[in-house]
Amino acid sequence: MFNVLSELEKFRAEDIPYSRVLSSMCTTPLPIALKAHELFIETNLGDPGIFAGTWKLEQKLIKMLGELLHNPNAKGYICSGGTEANIQAIRAARNVIRRERKIDRPNIVVPESAHFSFEKIGDILGVEVRRAKLDEEFKVDVASVESLVDENTVGIAGIAGTTELGQIDPIDELSKLALQLGVPLHVDAAFGGFVIPFMNKPYPFDFELEGVTSITIDPHKMGMATIPAGGILFRDEKFLNALIVETPYLTSRYQYTLTGTRPGTGVASAYAVLKHLGYKGMKQIVDECMRMTALLVEEMTSLGFEPVIEPVMNVVCFKTEKAEKIKEELYRRRWVISTIKNPRAIRLVVMPHVTEEVVKGFISELKSVLRSV
Amino acid sequence: MFNVLSELEKFRAEDIPYSRVLSSMCTTPLPIALKAHELFIETNLGDPGIFAGTWKLEQKLIKMLGELLHNPNAKGYICSGGTEANIQAIRAARNVIRRERKIDRPNIVVPESAHFSFEKIGDILGVEVRRAKLDEEFKVDVASVESLVDENTVGIAGIAGTTELGQIDPIDELSKLALQLGVPLHVDAAFGGFVIPFMNKPYPFDFELEGVTSITIDPHKMGMATIPAGGILFRDEKFLNALIVETPYLTSRYQYTLTGTRPGTGVASAYAVLKHLGYKGMKQIVDECMRMTALLVEEMTSLGFEPVIEPVMNVVCFKTEKAEKIKEELYRRRWVISTIKNPRAIRLVVMPHVTEEVVKGFISELKSVLRSV
Repeated sequence: MFNVLSELEKFRAEDIPYSRVLSSMCTTPLPIALKAHELFIETNLGDPGIFAGTWKLEQKLIKMLGELLHNPNAKGYICSGGTEANIQAIRAARNVIRRERKIDRPNIVVPESAHFSFEKIGDILGVEVRRAKLDEEFKVDVASVESLVDENTVGIAGIAGTTELGQIDPIDELSKLALQLGVPLHVDAAFGGFVIPFMNKPYPFDFELEGVTSITIDPHKMGMATIPAGGILFRDEKFLNALIVETPYLTSRYQYTLTGTRPGTGVASAYAVLKHLGYKGMKQIVDECMRMTALLVEEMTSLGFEPVIEPVMNVVCFKTEKAEKIKEELYRRRWVISTIKNPRAIRLVVMPHVTEEVVKGFISELKSVLRSV
Repeated sequence: MFNVLSELEKFRAEDIPYSRVLSSMCTTPLPIALKAHELFIETNLGDPGIFAGTWKLEQKLIKMLGELLHNPNAKGYICSGGTEANIQAIRAARNVIRRERKIDRPNIVVPESAHFSFEKIGDILGVEVRRAKLDEEFKVDVASVESLVDENTVGIAGIAGTTELGQIDPIDELSKLALQLGVPLHVDAAFGGFVIPFMNKPYPFDFELEGVTSITIDPHKMGMATIPAGGILFRDEKFLNALIVETPYLTSRYQYTLTGTRPGTGVASAYAVLKHLGYKGMKQIVDECMRMTALLVEEMTSLGFEPVIEPVMNVVCFKTEKAEKIKEELYRRRWVISTIKNPRAIRLVVMPHVTEEVVKGFISELKSVLRSV
């Protein structure tokens, strides 16, 4: 047993620690999340009759997430992550609208800035993915969305916290459009769902907007829960019901999840973080991430970099033609950042593990890298 | 923190412990699996450049699974479980065959005994699911499969360890049929993958059969790893490549997984179990499960029950018109079994946690239940 564990430790040591990672939307789970995870390590929500307590806890968590998103009656579940949540939202919309309108070749309209997983979704679900243009601030252009909607459109999507720039689409305008056109609106707030409610400036993006049908919100991103913990919430149960299959040999009678076996660890760790921190503690963490983002902008500006947009949340990109080279050289030194292509820029995600010490260390390494690229 | 944890403990206490569960294909993870899990708790295989060590470990594990399944060159990955593995196998087959043959309305042919997740798969992927008849031993009837295949068939599936009866389809005959018809054959060995290789009687079911294209094998079932740990392996890389999307802002350039963020815990725990036990240790556990299955059959026979089929692996069903009542009364007493409908029977899964003590306790409770139903 010790041999095997020491072998595993060697592999694990090759991983880069989060304290040198400014590219990921995941982070070190809070200590209470780890303890909760351990307590629920055996649980399987795929069989809720066996894990009746864990299942109750999930219902409580869904209610808490619903409250956070202005709809305590929202229905949903904790899933493997943002991709599953987005698949299920679009699948539900496809199934509901296809049934109502006899659509043969369904399409959805998403912003150009939507996460790459929407390409997967198109392939998986057999839905054409139409990409709407962005405005000069990299928010989706609502007129472009409208122009792409036709009689085969089963849904539109807006992003509350884009992966590349952390930008927030005008969800209020998308909501009006969705109501006017009679199509479901899915909001991908996988990242922003645990940020926007705690920001000083309000950005309406959730169920308080009448046209919003479903929301992706991932506890394993800014919710500081353990992986895997994604979340999908629907305003109206009929969308969740459009995902149902019967489950003959389980303690439940039907299942609306994508996966079968489903860990309860994410439920427990997400619940523990929310309960432990409360809205006040969450706001403190978001505030600190925003303070570190501002610090990075300051330091980077003094190095001559310019942000692509003034950061809206804790993601920031800086224009440079040398983006790829900088990324590669940093990686060689075991620092991880990412890049975007349009415009060419380096991208930094300022998760809770990006402390002042991490920022200082990063800037110091970057200065050295800039002398060599 | 302590308040939150004690609240969580209360919920957890409402779950039924595995020592009273004879319905699940999951089990208590081995101690070494738990230790490995803990060590990799932060890891995310969705970003293999950050978690380079974990990613290497996954490649090693895939090779070990390939070796176990008679093809060390098989390509695949560790996923959320059997449903994702089956979705990806059928999606790959659909994409490859649709491209080669310009199919508009794809279908697959699966046994009537296939897991209910194939219904999900049909809905998700837009593939018609045709169910082939079973023979009197509840194995798929190969002639029925053949009769359902047409020019729009993108794949057929066989089950190596059916969920209801633990039966093994004639995979060798399906393999011949698949080669003859030129369609991919997927083998769902989510349960059987870690059982059949260690059984005394050989049942050819894996890549040693030339027609087998892909195999589902779940470490979090009989592999005694932590949840989530499913596995999907392909003989030919072109099927894995048919799942690829580009990943602009990650350390990788493309992604073939269904989910994005993906825990490394399942990889570590599955690897640890296999390394720690070796084939010899795995065989001992399978032998013990088969011994307990035989003991259950003996005890149940002496109570007047008759198995639906002589158990092939560690799943056994006993005919009774009172199946539902027995299940409900046992559940009221916090014992969990399941039932099947055709024929009416109670179903018992004899996982490694079903020790002689558990069998005795169960039989004793069942005797008491039988007096009251």
